[in-house]
Amino acid sequence: MREVAIIGVGAHPTGQFTDKSLKDLGYTAIWGALKDAGVTPEDIDVAYVGNSLGGLLTGQEGVRGQVVLQHSGITGIPVINVENACASAATALRGAWLEVASGAADVAIAVGVEKMYVGDTARTIGALSSVSELDLSQMGMQFTTSYAIHPKINLKGKMKEYGWTSADFAKPAVKNSYNGSLNPLAQHRRALTIEQVVQSRIVVDPLTLYMCASISDGAAAAVVCAADMASKFTSKTPIRIASCVLRSGEYRLPNDKRLDSATVSAQAAYEEAGIGPEDLGAIELHDAMAPAELMLYERLGLCGPGEGPKLIDDGTTTLRGRLPVNPSGGLCSRGHPVGATGLLQIAELVWQMRGEAGPRQIEKRPKVTMAQNQGGLLLGQDSAVYGVTILKS
Amino acid sequence: MREVAIIGVGAHPTGQFTDKSLKDLGYTAIWGALKDAGVTPEDIDVAYVGNSLGGLLTGQEGVRGQVVLQHSGITGIPVINVENACASAATALRGAWLEVASGAADVAIAVGVEKMYVGDTARTIGALSSVSELDLSQMGMQFTTSYAIHPKINLKGKMKEYGWTSADFAKPAVKNSYNGSLNPLAQHRRALTIEQVVQSRIVVDPLTLYMCASISDGAAAAVVCAADMASKFTSKTPIRIASCVLRSGEYRLPNDKRLDSATVSAQAAYEEAGIGPEDLGAIELHDAMAPAELMLYERLGLCGPGEGPKLIDDGTTTLRGRLPVNPSGGLCSRGHPVGATGLLQIAELVWQMRGEAGPRQIEKRPKVTMAQNQGGLLLGQDSAVYGVTILKS
Repeated sequence: MREVAIIGVGAHPTGQFTDKSLKDLGYTAIWGALKDAGVTPEDIDVAYVGNSLGGLLTGQEGVRGQVVLQHSGITGIPVINVENACASAATALRGAWLEVASGAADVAIAVGVEKMYVGDTARTIGALSSVSELDLSQMGMQFTTSYAIHPKINLKGKMKEYGWTSADFAKPAVKNSYNGSLNPLAQHRRALTIEQVVQSRIVVDPLTLYMCASISDGAAAAVVCAADMASKFTSKTPIRIASCVLRSGEYRLPNDKRLDSATVSAQAAYEEAGIGPEDLGAIELHDAMAPAELMLYERLGLCGPGEGPKLIDDGTTTLRGRLPVNPSGGLCSRGHPVGATGLLQIAELVWQMRGEAGPRQIEKRPKVTMAQNQGGLLLGQDSAVYGVTILKS
Repeated sequence: MREVAIIGVGAHPTGQFTDKSLKDLGYTAIWGALKDAGVTPEDIDVAYVGNSLGGLLTGQEGVRGQVVLQHSGITGIPVINVENACASAATALRGAWLEVASGAADVAIAVGVEKMYVGDTARTIGALSSVSELDLSQMGMQFTTSYAIHPKINLKGKMKEYGWTSADFAKPAVKNSYNGSLNPLAQHRRALTIEQVVQSRIVVDPLTLYMCASISDGAAAAVVCAADMASKFTSKTPIRIASCVLRSGEYRLPNDKRLDSATVSAQAAYEEAGIGPEDLGAIELHDAMAPAELMLYERLGLCGPGEGPKLIDDGTTTLRGRLPVNPSGGLCSRGHPVGATGLLQIAELVWQMRGEAGPRQIEKRPKVTMAQNQGGLLLGQDSAVYGVTILKS
């Protein structure tokens, strides 16, 4: 396998863009990435397009990628439409990486695009239910509800087991809202306090409004190429993909013990990249609900059981800390247009690694970073999909 | 890239299976392929799952593959849900091939599964419209209508240009209905006459009912592995994937001339496999509407412009001819559960190449075969996706 580098990224701002279609959102991200990479549509050998709700919300199923790419002037090449719920964009990036790593392609583009504002919130929420296993949504469990009471997530149980409080759950949202306030691409650009987050209205106990990612339109794209070809296209620092791991559901061991795939996928990514958590200089992770960030700290090997809130209390994961997490603002502040999120994470990390992140630039420019993107729920299991990417400059 | 072999295939019969879900349909195909290949769920390193309409018709979007695979006992691995309209299954096979060819995986499974009977034909037809570019379906063009009047397909124009008649359009349907009558997995198992096809009710002039593939439930799967590992699992003849090509939309040449991707994708597949059309011993191709078979004869390089009907008249492409086309019965008779079709084609070719096709077995067992699978429509272009696979035994 060849070394693969990200040579360009682009993103559409996240938020409500009533007049914009999937095509329009995609165009901004695709041309942002093409220009950043110094490539033309003719240079692209293959495209992977992640989208989750286009069929249900816009009526465009089937050939969503071709439709978006053609609008941006890219046609004739293999286009692979991939879908993995909220991890669709990580799945797209992995596809592009594999094409180039294997030598099947020299230059590939990964696109994530999502249109969630369709003038009918109930319809959007209904569509979101369909990204979990149908048996769950048929129990009437809208996604946030599943998240709150799913036995494998078990937020109330964590409060008992670890002594976590509502204020602890609010901490990632507060930290990330500050980061988002500095990000011109973010959906929500206001720094919140613990009180504001805890006292915002309850969505599903113990989750309050500001602990939950909101409905969002958005798009992001990344151009990748063989690492040794990067300088042909651009003089910017190429960002190498050190590992790009995807896992689904749980690992069943012979003794019928199960391992959660959040942990397994992170371990696999560290191993493949030849690094450990101590080597990371920044992380973008999947905080669709703020408390998830605390649990992911454990699963990514950043701290021991129950120690998540401390990493925020002591400043470790803040923008000026040793290991900033979600410098973009994360899903709750930067925004979570589901099929685009994984590539919005990648775009943020690339900007941070190149020192192009403006007022939210991490002071010590990170050299090794991780994007962690997950999605969907399966009955009797944890999240359905986990994508972990480690980047090195 | 390593050589990759198909070591097992499985299929669910096509037709109306009111009581069966995506999970049930998938189970039969997946376990058929696993047993045929002599592998266990634990041997599978990665899975690609093609499905086109699950979100719109069954409510299961997002993690369709994980849901189907978990029901079949496969969990913990990377699962990539791919969608490319009626070419979703060819896309799934290409993904599985790339994983193994690149060395990222040793054993992979490709699955195609579709549930189209949901007790409401209008809803199914509506969902099918969404696999073309939205601007087409918003003109009120249901898929068959688009097919009949799309300027790039232009059936009426072909009648003028080539002197083709309604009876010519019926010929592939008649030929394939005979093949389907011998296939226990086929949806329609009755040999039709030219008169029956021409005189069946008009769907959209010049297409009559028996010239069109009907609504269908179905599933198919293929297990692939590194060619040099095949004998570890099975003593059956491994079927090598000589090329596995995917293209989308049209090729734009510098002079703004455009090449249709049906021709381009076939040429690329021949070249990669190092063969020409004269080397083929059987073809399964995408006759969603019977006249398409005649046009594909040209585009696959089997005959000159307008000569399609002759290949049936002189017996060349019949089951007992030199180059049998659609021995399974094709999309009109075997059935066209959209996201499963590409792998139903592969399963048929594998059975034919192994001499396991029963009463429809091609007398001179084919050693080189082609599956051609296409899907979707783009505004101002031809079909959106073309997948061509060449197999060698």
